[in-house]
Amino acid sequence: MVTETLKHRIVQAPLAGGPSTVELARAVGDAGGLGFLAAGYLKPDALRDQVRELRAATGAPFGVNVFVPGPVTGDPDALAAYLETLDGPGEPRHDDDAWSEKLAILLAERPAVASFTFGCPPPGDVSDLRRAGVEVWVTVTGAAEARQAEAAGAAALVVQGAEAGGHRGGFEDTTEPIGLLALLRLVAGATRLPLIATGGLMDAQSVAAARAAGAVAAQAGTAFMLAPEAGTHAAHRERLGTEAPTALTRAFTGRLARGIVNGFMGDHPDAPRAYPEIHHATAPIRAAARKRGDADGFNLWAGQAHALARERPAGEIVRALSRPD
Amino acid sequence: MVTETLKHRIVQAPLAGGPSTVELARAVGDAGGLGFLAAGYLKPDALRDQVRELRAATGAPFGVNVFVPGPVTGDPDALAAYLETLDGPGEPRHDDDAWSEKLAILLAERPAVASFTFGCPPPGDVSDLRRAGVEVWVTVTGAAEARQAEAAGAAALVVQGAEAGGHRGGFEDTTEPIGLLALLRLVAGATRLPLIATGGLMDAQSVAAARAAGAVAAQAGTAFMLAPEAGTHAAHRERLGTEAPTALTRAFTGRLARGIVNGFMGDHPDAPRAYPEIHHATAPIRAAARKRGDADGFNLWAGQAHALARERPAGEIVRALSRPD
Repeated sequence: MVTETLKHRIVQAPLAGGPSTVELARAVGDAGGLGFLAAGYLKPDALRDQVRELRAATGAPFGVNVFVPGPVTGDPDALAAYLETLDGPGEPRHDDDAWSEKLAILLAERPAVASFTFGCPPPGDVSDLRRAGVEVWVTVTGAAEARQAEAAGAAALVVQGAEAGGHRGGFEDTTEPIGLLALLRLVAGATRLPLIATGGLMDAQSVAAARAAGAVAAQAGTAFMLAPEAGTHAAHRERLGTEAPTALTRAFTGRLARGIVNGFMGDHPDAPRAYPEIHHATAPIRAAARKRGDADGFNLWAGQAHALARERPAGEIVRALSRPD
Repeated sequence: MVTETLKHRIVQAPLAGGPSTVELARAVGDAGGLGFLAAGYLKPDALRDQVRELRAATGAPFGVNVFVPGPVTGDPDALAAYLETLDGPGEPRHDDDAWSEKLAILLAERPAVASFTFGCPPPGDVSDLRRAGVEVWVTVTGAAEARQAEAAGAAALVVQGAEAGGHRGGFEDTTEPIGLLALLRLVAGATRLPLIATGGLMDAQSVAAARAAGAVAAQAGTAFMLAPEAGTHAAHRERLGTEAPTALTRAFTGRLARGIVNGFMGDHPDAPRAYPEIHHATAPIRAAARKRGDADGFNLWAGQAHALARERPAGEIVRALSRPD
């Protein structure tokens, strides 16, 4: 397993949609952790460029995370009603985020790890990747998903607790959000695969706790979002590291995700399940809010322990997560 | 601190409303953990009898948990509307669960620990208890509550993660439910008090994890609910230890609590905040369901990892939580 080769068993979460950068993945890898690129929302050419740029910049292994496409919304009327509440929405189109093209890039470029979010790739794709020397990780949020991923041939599971910032990464976003510690034990009882713990891990003590609960490595997202190497928006950075509460919402993308509670979330409490239709519909609204620096107008993804986030170089964060400060 | 004197730093959660028995607290104490009596819903005389019975049965220290009374519901219209949806409700009265009488019993009987749920007792009561030789623990669900409890003179904090079964025990049930691991780190950053972790702790690995995250002891509730010494209803026992999902609900009591999803919860998705008014209103409905053994008609409190619950004597559970099976 790739994590066994690392100096620090710390994995940088993919952080699609802004915070993920080649520079962040490079800094994490150079410090002895495992950096990740986020393929989500990227055009295939941009993904290929990032993979090649990262490979040129570091000899460290790294991972690439890909979103598994899902069905068109089952409730077009609820989607239409939600669009009525948006001021200047974009086209609520459904797409597969260039699934086949991105899979082809993984097979050609062969990163050390390919991790999957929002579902389990078909067993044929998993075995293709394995034959190409790519370790396949699947994100799970419950014991049933863990069993499915193991049956599909996954090499390891990213076990995402309810504390995690950003999207719930399991197969269905209606699965009960379970706290990381309980979830690790439930998944450990359902599968013998190695587990990478994620959700609310911000310091060496929480990482040690995840290891004590059976994880072989810890994946941290929010802990890296204030690093200078991250692409986190300035208005987002201002609210991270505060005691502002977080909540799960479908308002921004049509899929449950955890962010710091803000104006947009409060104004749109009842968004339906419709991903990525709502993601595309709110995209121009969020882009405009980012442009004017309005933290109440776009998604401020953050895990439940974001109050503990500190601004420091990504390499220092890797080391701090590995041992007590 | 009392936990420092224990053979096993395992605390039995109070489990008001049925599962708590003198026999359970005795078995936990005799095994070297800390047993607890639940004063909630008991008449003062019954509480006094239980304390004396337990003291006569064991030389081990034990704790008593008391509910801190809250305000009358701020939304009588929502309460009235909810009552309309109930079939044969009881009187939706507000009471203080005999707060003064129970405090007087604590001061007279002097258990090793008095823990508080649903709020922080006034500093005067805390110092009275301390002078009587009773260690005061306060249940918290966030960093702000932890600071308040420390200011009021608490000796230790019961840090309740979102995974926990039964009522959310913090000061307000609108506080963001935070996963145990993240919460332990947030609270550790806000106070220097010793922390007792609770929420989803079902085995030695999760207890070790809570310790690694900074807790001095672990409190387990659901883990004890299948013990023969517990007063758990037979119909409730049948659903514990399965993969049935849990959820937070106000349907049974008007205060958020986690239980196994059942028919009553599904039929009453939008109960307002009105505790204990709704507790009293649903009491006869729940009693009737218990009598006919209908698990879809009463509250099946359970933590998120209840699938790991096993039927075995409470003393064995204490030992299993302390070291790997």
